[in-house]
Amino acid sequence: MNKLAIVGSLAFDAIETPAGKTDKIIGGASPYIALASSYFGVKPQIISVVGGDFPEEYFNILNDRGVDTSGVDVRKDGKTMFWSGVYNKDLNQRTTLVTELNVFADFNPDVPTSYKNPDVLMLGNITPSIQQAVIQKIGNRPKLIVMDTMNYWMNTTPDDLDATIRMVDVLTINDEEARQLSGEYSLVKAARKILGMGLLYLIIKKGDNGALLFTRDGQMFFAPALPLETVCDPTGAGDSFAGGFCGYIAAKGSTDFETAKAAVIAGSVMGSFCCEKFGTENLLSLSEQTVATRVKQFEEMCRFKY
Amino acid sequence: MNKLAIVGSLAFDAIETPAGKTDKIIGGASPYIALASSYFGVKPQIISVVGGDFPEEYFNILNDRGVDTSGVDVRKDGKTMFWSGVYNKDLNQRTTLVTELNVFADFNPDVPTSYKNPDVLMLGNITPSIQQAVIQKIGNRPKLIVMDTMNYWMNTTPDDLDATIRMVDVLTINDEEARQLSGEYSLVKAARKILGMGLLYLIIKKGDNGALLFTRDGQMFFAPALPLETVCDPTGAGDSFAGGFCGYIAAKGSTDFETAKAAVIAGSVMGSFCCEKFGTENLLSLSEQTVATRVKQFEEMCRFKY
Repeated sequence: MNKLAIVGSLAFDAIETPAGKTDKIIGGASPYIALASSYFGVKPQIISVVGGDFPEEYFNILNDRGVDTSGVDVRKDGKTMFWSGVYNKDLNQRTTLVTELNVFADFNPDVPTSYKNPDVLMLGNITPSIQQAVIQKIGNRPKLIVMDTMNYWMNTTPDDLDATIRMVDVLTINDEEARQLSGEYSLVKAARKILGMGLLYLIIKKGDNGALLFTRDGQMFFAPALPLETVCDPTGAGDSFAGGFCGYIAAKGSTDFETAKAAVIAGSVMGSFCCEKFGTENLLSLSEQTVATRVKQFEEMCRFKY
Repeated sequence: MNKLAIVGSLAFDAIETPAGKTDKIIGGASPYIALASSYFGVKPQIISVVGGDFPEEYFNILNDRGVDTSGVDVRKDGKTMFWSGVYNKDLNQRTTLVTELNVFADFNPDVPTSYKNPDVLMLGNITPSIQQAVIQKIGNRPKLIVMDTMNYWMNTTPDDLDATIRMVDVLTINDEEARQLSGEYSLVKAARKILGMGLLYLIIKKGDNGALLFTRDGQMFFAPALPLETVCDPTGAGDSFAGGFCGYIAAKGSTDFETAKAAVIAGSVMGSFCCEKFGTENLLSLSEQTVATRVKQFEEMCRFKY
């Protein structure tokens, strides 16, 4: 089975949305990425750090979906990272109530031997220097290195961020971040500039307005977001998108444009599932049939004959 | 040639965007709708009213594209409607500086005999009671009646608006308006409720985030907006979309879902052209080849094989 190495936060989240409120549930970027990718026939392997308070049960939940957590550093005396936030009525804005980095504050990732030489490496949204460290420790260069980031790193560590982007193949950011990073308002111009940093693909995520895939030779693909009956909790939708994208690519073992387009659809499919329940809940027990039906919905939504 | 009757404003616009500033150019909904539809092999016929100050030259510009303006009431002693607005840096907000209704204030549409029994009737965004009057005067019921409206009529004449929607086949509104009209935040739920008013199709326009087509039996189609190198002036993009949609349907003479999907693409194509220059300028002299190339761009942007 092809391997997908994932570095990213593993945390407790407490989330409030108009649909309800959770206690401390599994959170952080890495579980969403790993669980979403697990539906594509790959072995997801998480590199992260938690405290002694992270319940065995949460590891079991991940392991039951085939996620390898042996590369998660458990610091017995430390506390797991904690994030808490509340969404507005329309779920398009959220306010962070608490961010406690705890053991994540001095995370120094180690890559176990069993994780080395993955087919795809996914760098979740963390400090660019940590993302770089993982690239250096991962062994043979993966077929594809995918990197998520955010405006925070553009503001605080622009040089590290720039250097890291130049080491990867795919960058996933949202439209505002693409504009900030490039200084261009037109997404076409922004994409051209960012791709000029040496990327194979740029993915611009627009939340419930879909996602754009740009190639360095000027091609473009658009995947809509599925309009949903009910959005329960958008937390982790972007990470689920990344997980679907990386899982699909890793499983196919190809990085050509046709595969990348289908992978963007796979990402959109997993992002849509993520939003329908709180936290990672909906990513835990989807049937093959359910996933296939949703892919079909995307096909029907996009297909036309002029 | 199949006929498309259009009722809507015909006015002077003075527009300022970051790309520049215009004098009083041809404006209002009807010229955008008519010009956009003219690329699909139909006869657009405008029902509107202007003052004696409306230049013969502007009629010639429309007539040269095959647009019939014989149904435009010219009130020699009146003044043409005038709108002036300025867009913000990102072109996603505009401030109206001047709206002078002038002869449009007591517009009482008359339908000339040569306009009767069109294949498609497009009701541009005006007072619902005027839209109703045109439906009553148009002759045999057209194959398709398409109606544009806006939140202003939801707030000021909700009963008239409700009655008018129940007389038409297709409603085009934006996402905020769909939410206001239905009282539902989810666009899926909003669409179901609005379609329940007796529509065949609902089109929810999301500006540069594309457009959704919903059918009353629960099918859904999404057309992206084309990311553009340069957006010069978004004025009239929604009307150009409507013109492309109606023009395509009228030309094909069919209202089935496959035709409607392609018509939404035709609308998106014309909306994209509209934004590239000021006012109607870019809709005046497109070649067949240019339109065909852009349709191809949409096909490439949407096509994937999972």
